Amino acid sequence: MTHDETTTVTAIPTRWVGPIRVSGNAVTGEISVPLATYETPLWPSVGRGAKVSRLVEGGIAVTILGERMTRSVLFTAPDAASAHTAALAIHEREAELHEAVAGTSRFAKLVEVHPEIVGNLLFVRFALQTGDASGHNMVTRAADALMDRILSWGLPVEYGSISGNYCSDKKATAVNGILGRGRSAVADILIPHEIVERVLHTSAERIVDLVVRKNLVGSTIAGALRSANAHYANMLLAFYLATGQDAANIVEGSQGITYAETRPEGLYFSCTLPHLIVGTVGNGKHLAHTQEALERLGCEAEREPGANARRLAALIAASVLCGELSLLAAQTNPGELMAAHVAFERTGTEQS
Amino acid sequence: MTHDETTTVTAIPTRWVGPIRVSGNAVTGEISVPLATYETPLWPSVGRGAKVSRLVEGGIAVTILGERMTRSVLFTAPDAASAHTAALAIHEREAELHEAVAGTSRFAKLVEVHPEIVGNLLFVRFALQTGDASGHNMVTRAADALMDRILSWGLPVEYGSISGNYCSDKKATAVNGILGRGRSAVADILIPHEIVERVLHTSAERIVDLVVRKNLVGSTIAGALRSANAHYANMLLAFYLATGQDAANIVEGSQGITYAETRPEGLYFSCTLPHLIVGTVGNGKHLAHTQEALERLGCEAEREPGANARRLAALIAASVLCGELSLLAAQTNPGELMAAHVAFERTGTEQS
Amino acid sequence: MTHDETTTVTAIPTRWVGPIRVSGNAVTGEISVPLATYETPLWPSVGRGAKVSRLVEGGIAVTILGERMTRSVLFTAPDAASAHTAALAIHEREAELHEAVAGTSRFAKLVEVHPEIVGNLLFVRFALQTGDASGHNMVTRAADALMDRILSWGLPVEYGSISGNYCSDKKATAVNGILGRGRSAVADILIPHEIVERVLHTSAERIVDLVVRKNLVGSTIAGALRSANAHYANMLLAFYLATGQDAANIVEGSQGITYAETRPEGLYFSCTLPHLIVGTVGNGKHLAHTQEALERLGCEAEREPGANARRLAALIAASVLCGELSLLAAQTNPGELMAAHVAFERTGTEQS
Amino acid sequence: MTHDETTTVTAIPTRWVGPIRVSGNAVTGEISVPLATYETPLWPSVGRGAKVSRLVEGGIAVTILGERMTRSVLFTAPDAASAHTAALAIHEREAELHEAVAGTSRFAKLVEVHPEIVGNLLFVRFALQTGDASGHNMVTRAADALMDRILSWGLPVEYGSISGNYCSDKKATAVNGILGRGRSAVADILIPHEIVERVLHTSAERIVDLVVRKNLVGSTIAGALRSANAHYANMLLAFYLATGQDAANIVEGSQGITYAETRPEGLYFSCTLPHLIVGTVGNGKHLAHTQEALERLGCEAEREPGANARRLAALIAASVLCGELSLLAAQTNPGELMAAHVAFERTGTEQS
Repeated sequence: MTHDETTTVTAIPTRWVGPIRVSGNAVTGEISVPLATYETPLWPSVGRGAKVSRLVEGGIAVTILGERMTRSVLFTAPDAASAHTAALAIHEREAELHEAVAGTSRFAKLVEVHPEIVGNLLFVRFALQTGDASGHNMVTRAADALMDRILSWGLPVEYGSISGNYCSDKKATAVNGILGRGRSAVADILIPHEIVERVLHTSAERIVDLVVRKNLVGSTIAGALRSANAHYANMLLAFYLATGQDAANIVEGSQGITYAETRPEGLYFSCTLPHLIVGTVGNGKHLAHTQEALERLGCEAEREPGANARRLAALIAASVLCGELSLLAAQTNPGELMAAHVAFERTGTEQS
Repeated sequence: MTHDETTTVTAIPTRWVGPIRVSGNAVTGEISVPLATYETPLWPSVGRGAKVSRLVEGGIAVTILGERMTRSVLFTAPDAASAHTAALAIHEREAELHEAVAGTSRFAKLVEVHPEIVGNLLFVRFALQTGDASGHNMVTRAADALMDRILSWGLPVEYGSISGNYCSDKKATAVNGILGRGRSAVADILIPHEIVERVLHTSAERIVDLVVRKNLVGSTIAGALRSANAHYANMLLAFYLATGQDAANIVEGSQGITYAETRPEGLYFSCTLPHLIVGTVGNGKHLAHTQEALERLGCEAEREPGANARRLAALIAASVLCGELSLLAAQTNPGELMAAHVAFERTGTEQS
Repeated sequence: MTHDETTTVTAIPTRWVGPIRVSGNAVTGEISVPLATYETPLWPSVGRGAKVSRLVEGGIAVTILGERMTRSVLFTAPDAASAHTAALAIHEREAELHEAVAGTSRFAKLVEVHPEIVGNLLFVRFALQTGDASGHNMVTRAADALMDRILSWGLPVEYGSISGNYCSDKKATAVNGILGRGRSAVADILIPHEIVERVLHTSAERIVDLVVRKNLVGSTIAGALRSANAHYANMLLAFYLATGQDAANIVEGSQGITYAETRPEGLYFSCTLPHLIVGTVGNGKHLAHTQEALERLGCEAEREPGANARRLAALIAASVLCGELSLLAAQTNPGELMAAHVAFERTGTEQS
Repeated sequence: MTHDETTTVTAIPTRWVGPIRVSGNAVTGEISVPLATYETPLWPSVGRGAKVSRLVEGGIAVTILGERMTRSVLFTAPDAASAHTAALAIHEREAELHEAVAGTSRFAKLVEVHPEIVGNLLFVRFALQTGDASGHNMVTRAADALMDRILSWGLPVEYGSISGNYCSDKKATAVNGILGRGRSAVADILIPHEIVERVLHTSAERIVDLVVRKNLVGSTIAGALRSANAHYANMLLAFYLATGQDAANIVEGSQGITYAETRPEGLYFSCTLPHLIVGTVGNGKHLAHTQEALERLGCEAEREPGANARRLAALIAASVLCGELSLLAAQTNPGELMAAHVAFERTGTEQS
């Protein structure tokens, strides 16, 4: 064997932060979350947001809006008219496709078939419900079966690719948010002004101004795509690694929108995360330490398929809100961000 | 203390894959690379690309095009005319800013100041060279000093934010590629047709067709942004984790372009990675296992500042090419992707 | 009255170019098209493409894939949970919405209701079929009725805006192509190699290389969005003006994809135009000169609702292909573009 | 001659609206503007904004931030290393390029050379100052000369294309705003609360909320690119047509950002237009009616090169602000938009 095969382990420092007080349609309670990261100032940052959550009745509300996993396949045709003929036939025989998917897994269920034609190329994007799995492998198996089935119909198309990039996996695109991919979650909280001032050392007005100027206007001129937040990717990476997720999916996960309002009763603050690719079963989840983390999070209970994964998605969304809120608060104050980093790196303790 | 502080370790399976044969303006030789991932089929996939590299004279050529780290700050003004006045003053006094940065670090060097005005908001994006560090902390320190300096000039602007999202860190945007962020690398290789057929079981024509149809056209309809590749994020995540990088930067790293041509002498295949945020010093690099990985990669040698980091970036780019080439080759063949996954998961060995 | 109200006329030079040979599911025949423009070199450019079409059996095939007009409205809620409640109710009572739209126009028909939630904001995008109208006013009336109806249901939402920019009208966005807006058309043609060489002075290989390198790769690095073409906007503007369209809709019209292949039998060349906002009735169409243009194009005949507008869209798509093909051919030859402009501006005649 | 050459005229209804009160670094005074459009409700809409401007001291301030026209060319190389070598040589010999451009026109001046490499493809984007011309033809001539010059140097590159889509002309992209294209303008105004209420029938708070929710958040989820406005394209089209501009450039013109703030003294409202491609000389400007329009606008005076075009750009920006402000105000009130359209279409008079 000429190639290298040394196998080792990469050990990433992990801290359980919280507890976060959380409520909503997928989880309720006070729960600590594990964050695996080389960037340890993340811990006190999320910790400060968690502290805020515990001071508010109901804490952070998380609403799960939907769930699905996707894969697009590519067929080639001689011309657009033939591609259109094939697309119409696929639409008419969609029931057969549902059946084809059902045969590939106990949990996979086809929920949408979305075609798009470019010249003589026919892209078809399939969306599936995948139970508690993130669904990467489930959609690969399903796509295989679906292509076989469609190619057996004698339509004027040929195999192009089992993946046509209209999926889109681990790429920042617009299609994932518009048509859906992964669990879709919104985390929000209404924080009394007194707590904003005492714990976050800022005001609702200053947070709202920063959200508009930095996250919305700043992201717009940066040429961001369906995205307006400060640092969702940090929390996602740390949580994904600690719980055995395919953390390359933080790419699409990083696209999301922070939106805030000043209200008489306090600061309304929200994080919208349209595509969290997460699961509680599958690759990475059967290792001892990830299994333990999922259990401690209460995501290994006996529930209807999908409920554990939705609970996990909700906890992730709440963690993202904690870290986003804390960083934005810090950035409203000149010098605070720098001071916090320096302090934490010197002492390793939270400065709240 | 009411909050949780349990500290544990997240252990990610890591394999050294290769060696990859590589040449170019930052590294030459045959070098194995460490990939830390829960998605272990990545190992044989990159391994197959490495095998191809070893069969080609010179292997994979990697050209480092540039390097810089960036941070944007935000000032607020009463109106656009005032913001413009401030932008002109900043431009005129740029020399003072270079000096201010030099005082914050031995390695930091200001290389560009790029303003953008929206209404009464003045965003200023600073680009720095940061030696062998990825530079996150260096630009935070520099931005702090730069804002202080500019605010001391009495211009008609006030503190808006130490980070204005025009940077852009861990977000997929257009500005990073156009103005530059991180090390910019192109990896390319010219593979004789015989090797394409024997090792990759496909042809140059089929690879080129797939690159155009899937990576370019498919990404376009997905609404991708300055990005056209199959799965750069997978290789980046694995390499980043194993070497102590801030892996949340795979978000911008995932944006890159695969481009290929059929030529009489073989398949020309390239991966362009405009923003690799990587370093050989700083957070995460002083842990024993990441230190060891960097040493084994030859990235801890005595060299001029930046040379170790460029070497690392080049090795990452070569690894990305290996994985990208192998996956695309598989996708030209109906059923191969599925079969490869199944086979690897059963036996754990490469099927080449 | 203090404000100015002088009314004049802007007179734009217009030439009928062609005839273009065209076939497909909306129009068949040889038809000349009117192009109103200050940039008169456009005429011979489209004329050269038209000449190619007449040399090919069947000419340019145009496939109309779909048609719809859209408007998004915005509701505000106290929080995401309430917005979600409202979205679910709207989904359940969708039948009532179809009825509400039917009452606003003989031709308007609701075909899709697509919600998206950001924090406490609920955007709902409505898609309608609008017969032969482009549908701007029809969707305004429908949106008015739909908001009234929904607000009468007592859901936990309030009026936000009659237009929420998720429509999107006269803005380049991703949603229009993914969910559909306007008539969607693909124009394609297979041109024998001999004609490519004789009329276009180039080869299939060179055209395909240019389409990939300029339109696909070049547009990608420019940060284009769901768009990869050379100059669709030119043909669209000229055709829209001459036929009384709302030419500001060339903004979304400009997004489209040119895709080409080299085949043994010739050059396959296609233009995909996902969102042509055009109609044969409504504002601008009742002026004498636009009415005459529509009649000469055969778009004022007695047909089922929508057929005239689809015919118009097909003619526009064919015209776009003519101009795109001709310009790309010119750009494969160093110096030709410049020479063509100079020659035309001197003599006013086509150089083919 | 087999092809069609009937030449006619497309007559577009045009009204002079205003006067608009305007100030800033390119124009000061009260000036009416011509709007050519089939969508006549645009007239009273802009008229209402003009009325507001006349009630405010100084009216609408317009700041011109910069001006340039661009063209990218494409070279092909054997590999990335060669492309990099060529890019470095072009950088080193940039002075020769300045000289080459100077030889093509009295007014053209090279101001930036920006390379980007993808695999073996070398794109080079040139930016020029073009005096009072929009500069389409000037950059074509310059690019021709620049390519000839560069190809004469014996670098390892060949002709790829005279236009590489990294320009980008008449396409919505990110590069134009980030690196600049056309005249860059910001129009802003501070409107006392009393006027907001009396003339616009709304409040500063409601305008600001709508700007954030619709223009910023709504555009973000639509997948807009560096753009957040309600309908810039409408005003641009009408103004461009009436003054002989190449109106296909409303595509990039349509990208811009509306930003507003509530202040104690009133509503701060701004429109940022980074890429107005306009000129007072060149194609379309020598027709009698466009010449007359430019004269009436005071854009044909004896001034330093560029001053007339900057004045024109400033007037366009002010007109855009008028129409944007009026529409947003209307959309804060349920039913007003519909009523305004109906009323205007019935009576043809402004309802202010």
